[in-house]
Amino acid sequence: MTESEVKKSQESLQDRLAQVVELLQRQRVVEDLTHRQEGHHNDRVENLVHRQNLVELQRKLDDLHSADVAYILEALPLDDRLTVWQLVKAERDGDILLEVSDSVRETLIADMDDHELLAAAKEMDADELADLAPELPRDVVHELMETLDAQQRERVRSALSYDEDQVGALMDFEMVTIREDVSLEVVLRYLRRLKELPSHTDKLFVVDYDGKLKGVLPIKRLLVNDPDKQVAEVMASDPVSFHPDEDAYDAAQAFERYDLISAPVVDKSDRLIGRLTIDEMVDLIREESENEVLNMAGLREEEDIFASVWRSLRNRWAWLAINLITAFVASRVIGLFEGSIEKLVALAALMPIVAGIGGNSGNQTITMIVRAMALDQVSPGNTARLMRKELAVALINGLVWGGVIGVVAYLLYGSWSLGVVMTAAMTLNLLLAALMGVLIPMTLARMGRDPAMGASVMITAMTDSGGFFIFLGLATIFLL
Amino acid sequence: MTESEVKKSQESLQDRLAQVVELLQRQRVVEDLTHRQEGHHNDRVENLVHRQNLVELQRKLDDLHSADVAYILEALPLDDRLTVWQLVKAERDGDILLEVSDSVRETLIADMDDHELLAAAKEMDADELADLAPELPRDVVHELMETLDAQQRERVRSALSYDEDQVGALMDFEMVTIREDVSLEVVLRYLRRLKELPSHTDKLFVVDYDGKLKGVLPIKRLLVNDPDKQVAEVMASDPVSFHPDEDAYDAAQAFERYDLISAPVVDKSDRLIGRLTIDEMVDLIREESENEVLNMAGLREEEDIFASVWRSLRNRWAWLAINLITAFVASRVIGLFEGSIEKLVALAALMPIVAGIGGNSGNQTITMIVRAMALDQVSPGNTARLMRKELAVALINGLVWGGVIGVVAYLLYGSWSLGVVMTAAMTLNLLLAALMGVLIPMTLARMGRDPAMGASVMITAMTDSGGFFIFLGLATIFLL
Repeated sequence: MTESEVKKSQESLQDRLAQVVELLQRQRVVEDLTHRQEGHHNDRVENLVHRQNLVELQRKLDDLHSADVAYILEALPLDDRLTVWQLVKAERDGDILLEVSDSVRETLIADMDDHELLAAAKEMDADELADLAPELPRDVVHELMETLDAQQRERVRSALSYDEDQVGALMDFEMVTIREDVSLEVVLRYLRRLKELPSHTDKLFVVDYDGKLKGVLPIKRLLVNDPDKQVAEVMASDPVSFHPDEDAYDAAQAFERYDLISAPVVDKSDRLIGRLTIDEMVDLIREESENEVLNMAGLREEEDIFASVWRSLRNRWAWLAINLITAFVASRVIGLFEGSIEKLVALAALMPIVAGIGGNSGNQTITMIVRAMALDQVSPGNTARLMRKELAVALINGLVWGGVIGVVAYLLYGSWSLGVVMTAAMTLNLLLAALMGVLIPMTLARMGRDPAMGASVMITAMTDSGGFFIFLGLATIFLL
Repeated sequence: MTESEVKKSQESLQDRLAQVVELLQRQRVVEDLTHRQEGHHNDRVENLVHRQNLVELQRKLDDLHSADVAYILEALPLDDRLTVWQLVKAERDGDILLEVSDSVRETLIADMDDHELLAAAKEMDADELADLAPELPRDVVHELMETLDAQQRERVRSALSYDEDQVGALMDFEMVTIREDVSLEVVLRYLRRLKELPSHTDKLFVVDYDGKLKGVLPIKRLLVNDPDKQVAEVMASDPVSFHPDEDAYDAAQAFERYDLISAPVVDKSDRLIGRLTIDEMVDLIREESENEVLNMAGLREEEDIFASVWRSLRNRWAWLAINLITAFVASRVIGLFEGSIEKLVALAALMPIVAGIGGNSGNQTITMIVRAMALDQVSPGNTARLMRKELAVALINGLVWGGVIGVVAYLLYGSWSLGVVMTAAMTLNLLLAALMGVLIPMTLARMGRDPAMGASVMITAMTDSGGFFIFLGLATIFLL
């Protein structure tokens, strides 16, 4: 991209989207009219207006940065999305495919034939190919691999051999390497011979003849130091580096903590095999935060808002089904006390208050703990203290708000003892919520699961069944 | 920081924390013993073991990068945190204060006297001072401002004049500026005269004699082009730039979309007044995602996990109180149907299932919509379509899962009509959940509020009251 492209497209992305949507709508009106006049659907008359629209739309799209076209594709429903996709210049297909989210990418790839896919993939670097490969048809991948040279093929294979959440899957191979026994002047001349430097080049990698990483030369140091100095004098000899099998999210946190822009990836014998850059890490940080939100709500994955109904159902069913079971359990808990409810029907009206406040409070606790765990702030050493604090908060909330609702219950039903039972039940259920709000994410983490996974569904299950049991149990003992 | 510091500290942050915690515990044991032998608390005998421990702890801390000390401070309860804080070398106080979260920073500042605060702040740049100033005592800020030169003071004032979420509050002033009518050779020589370049310098800012931004010279271009060329030939003349009153989060999204590392901030007459860097943007992206999670759960702000019980209560009360009211409303809805429940007590056991599944499903919808809105993917043009999709998903879920639970209700209570009412109520409540899941965040956004704010509490309120009303209403009409 040129810088000027960026300027233009940044001005107002929302406006651009609005313009595209308008052109698409005009387009559809024209098509509808044409169809109606023709009386059948398949023979599309390409009249003048129709074409003018498409030309205007295409011009708009050509002006936009690939990342902005990707944004527009994400925001369009499937049919419009494919109309736009067909208008995008073929040579930009690859860039745009790399920018869109997985679910949108799938819809775009489904719309391309093997020939188009090959053309789009041909421009890509090894790391980009590896990103795309899992979603491409098998024979396209096969054909692609044949066009690569041995080193590129090896790189694609190696990138594919790592899990999505390992450093190896996110590294790229655009390293500029230099030797330590040359002067900065030589380095400057060497760089001038390269027509272009890879994006995010804030440091050069200093390697020996075996390809072992000896250090890094930050561009900043290259620029401010005397050109007669040797690389070895100026380089940082002990840089932050990563191994390909490290957890990518840990790497992202290190990038954030140490304000890195790029960092070398080395194998076990310290040989430089790739690099990580901040742009990939930013994407990862955003994805992790998103997954946390989704997981807490019991959604399996990021859902393209125009995903088909069927896709949405699949995405949401797992936790809904679990919730159905937990709700059923809660219902059976109430079933145990049907006799009590028959005698004192007020219990039926009051019991959801106990359960509901418990659920809300438990969700607050679990959200806070999940956050703290994501930031590595929870350790065995401070669990007990954390638990004490949450229990103290729950106790006070229970007595205060439980007290309020106890008074309300008295005013409504004229029974002091009902009010006291209400207050006691609220307090106990809030204590249960605090306990579970701490224990659920910790247990999930100990089992090697994501602590946020369905956290909300689970805590609500506990506070519902628990709340009903506590309240109806206390009522049965003390009121009947 | 030197690069070697970073290397050492990156090795295992969790281990480092564990070591510090262990030293602190040993320390406490020693203190306890000393106290017991002495028989009173105030006269602390600093024996040899005690001192050795502190020295070891101090050595450990000195080895750590400021960001890592900040991490450890975050993870420690208040008393341990202050012990560590007192051991940190005074000259690093400023760096660390800038790294920790707001709530932890407050506890650290409360522990420092004016003299220490002044010393810590003296090393800071204008933008850093502006970050810290709101939390410092008034007279310290006043004294600080007096020590600054006119330009610095003006910069601090200007940074303070912007809202937290505006570009102006996040920009720094470490720009390297050059003229367009000089050769790259001259630029290279000029840079060599500077001892150091500011962090995140991936481009130099080209300004005219009035300080107006003419373009940017990416370091990459400076390095690969012939040194005899003029800056004007090589620079990008239409770079992405921001205004100080723009929304910072929009800027962060632009950084993410266009893979920027730094960008100029200009005033209305195009004069360069500061720059934004990716590190600030990464922090912002993380904060935004965090706020979304917190807001959905009804927490007012990020809560330091060792916050005092009182702080935690204040943070959580607002939404708990609202939840109390909504729960009360739901309870009154049930109250309306007490007569029906007395006649058919099974209703009391089944009604929380209808409400619960509705709540879960509504939370899934609202989470998805809030996400899509944060990514600017929801526009007036696609709202209707989005709504249709959510309603379709809800209808199918209602018929399928409602059907299942209807059969279960029949098996439990032997009444087909009860099963049918259950299925119908589930379906209607899921449709309500879908409708509200779309409307609540959109309405909040239209009112200029954060669409995630208390989203979970509100949708649950709707699906609870709505679910009870629908189920008990249908049951009253058709079963009694």
